[in-house]
Amino acid sequence: MNIDMIDAAAQRLRGHARRTPMLSSPFLDAIAGRRVYVKAECLQHTGSFKFRGGWSAVSALSPDIRSKGVIAFSSGNHAQGVALAAREHGITAVIIMPSDAPRMKIDNTRALGAEVVLYDRAGEDRDVLGARLSGERGLTLIKPFDEPQVIAGQGTTGLEIAEDAAALGIKNADVIVCCGGGGLTSGIALALEARAPSLRVRPAEPEGFDDVARSLASGRIERNPRTSGSLCDAIITPQPGDLTFPILHRLCGPGLVVSEDEALHAMSLAFARLKVVAEPGGAVALAAALFRKGEIEGEAVIVTISGGNVDGEIFAQALDRFPA
Amino acid sequence: MNIDMIDAAAQRLRGHARRTPMLSSPFLDAIAGRRVYVKAECLQHTGSFKFRGGWSAVSALSPDIRSKGVIAFSSGNHAQGVALAAREHGITAVIIMPSDAPRMKIDNTRALGAEVVLYDRAGEDRDVLGARLSGERGLTLIKPFDEPQVIAGQGTTGLEIAEDAAALGIKNADVIVCCGGGGLTSGIALALEARAPSLRVRPAEPEGFDDVARSLASGRIERNPRTSGSLCDAIITPQPGDLTFPILHRLCGPGLVVSEDEALHAMSLAFARLKVVAEPGGAVALAAALFRKGEIEGEAVIVTISGGNVDGEIFAQALDRFPA
Repeated sequence: MNIDMIDAAAQRLRGHARRTPMLSSPFLDAIAGRRVYVKAECLQHTGSFKFRGGWSAVSALSPDIRSKGVIAFSSGNHAQGVALAAREHGITAVIIMPSDAPRMKIDNTRALGAEVVLYDRAGEDRDVLGARLSGERGLTLIKPFDEPQVIAGQGTTGLEIAEDAAALGIKNADVIVCCGGGGLTSGIALALEARAPSLRVRPAEPEGFDDVARSLASGRIERNPRTSGSLCDAIITPQPGDLTFPILHRLCGPGLVVSEDEALHAMSLAFARLKVVAEPGGAVALAAALFRKGEIEGEAVIVTISGGNVDGEIFAQALDRFPA
Repeated sequence: MNIDMIDAAAQRLRGHARRTPMLSSPFLDAIAGRRVYVKAECLQHTGSFKFRGGWSAVSALSPDIRSKGVIAFSSGNHAQGVALAAREHGITAVIIMPSDAPRMKIDNTRALGAEVVLYDRAGEDRDVLGARLSGERGLTLIKPFDEPQVIAGQGTTGLEIAEDAAALGIKNADVIVCCGGGGLTSGIALALEARAPSLRVRPAEPEGFDDVARSLASGRIERNPRTSGSLCDAIITPQPGDLTFPILHRLCGPGLVVSEDEALHAMSLAFARLKVVAEPGGAVALAAALFRKGEIEGEAVIVTISGGNVDGEIFAQALDRFPA
């Protein structure tokens, strides 16, 4: 993994991924006690940064391999990112989803042209199912984060942050990134190492699922005790990746951990002050900027809102419980 | 009013107003039966396009006049746009607001540094109050729409639409604009006349407050029977402006009229598919694109989401009543 792969991914994404805006509000600055800049990846195609990695990986395949199609395991944002990237390349995407995944996510992934294969979490092994489908049809597996071209795609977010920070004159800032398996965080960290080395990348996670923060503290990969039961579903993974963790360990400052309620509160503030929709997992970095200010060193803070794929009911709960 | 004034306003706004993104979703395209592009002015500073006109007007004043401060009448988006523009120029803004305006809007306007003067709708004449304050303190009145530099500022939205349409290869499209007094619509129409003359501007309004549609049909200024009682409060005005109407009449196609429920439905779809927050009045153009497709001629449609300043309760109602 290096900056050249990220630059190459940026070339491939040009005209396909959206260049998302950097938003801000004096009201958020007042809460955080410093300037807050928000990289709104919820405005990316399919509602999350995952389209970048999906496009990067699909477009990096050789044409004859690519033409056979791709396969991914996901019940959420990665599914939609890969589905749209595949459709725009005119190839098949098979997405293996648990049969109890939210109906809307299944419907959306189908509507984006993917062939959805449902499996029974209790009775079937998705890896066996995936391997059979790949073998029979020659599909290429697109992993959600531990895959160099996916990391390179997510890293294009970091190139844009570096450009915007330079234009805004931001030199001393913590860059807080919503972190699951570490694809986005490691990609941004590599991009900023090369293009804005004075900025410090900090992963943000929800309480109870802080495998990355604990892994950074101990210096080795630590697991989460559980991987379900969080509203922040989009960024819950068992542990950091074998490819992503060494990058995180080398380049990132200590992890920041927020409560689920703080993530919901940040969603409500993003609604009221930025006019964007954040999903719970996509709001943990903003929550850290607003509610963990004592743990932040920078004069300014840059945060990702990494996705906005949230059900209306949960969003309405956030607005109701935490009126801005 | 001419394109040179809009270009000059764009120069003054550079580095101050946000260049808002043009968003899209295949799900919206499917509903509309054509490509739908959304100019997301809800992401503008203060949550609506009004910051453009406020900044344009304040920055166009001569320094000695400007230093005495500005005054505006508004209970909503214009208030916040003028307040922030004044604060960033380091001058006083006096905003005259009805004492029964929503507490949050009063608080926000104050928090943006404005001096808020409340008046009693029943017992006081706001024009007399405003004239007294202006006279005593030398404040310059910034009108909400019928003012050349305000129209020029709103017209910068049209310059960006023209640039983005060219980049996207859009040649045959209706450009639907949420329309109150006509400042944004006339500004965009003037910009597109000069820079993208193949695009047709269409005003959009809520049922019962379709003064512009009726005025365009009759060829003379028509009034609304009432000017309150709509969720689309941000775009309810008694009648088109004396400056704006001749521009609208010369340059715009027939008006489009949607119901309040259709506006709420469009808000829910903007939430689910674009991840942005639209207020009811800011969603009427998107509603027209989605639900009045038989009245639209273009191969594609470009719509403004003109603002996102909506209470959480109303937003939650829209999500609940019209799940996407």
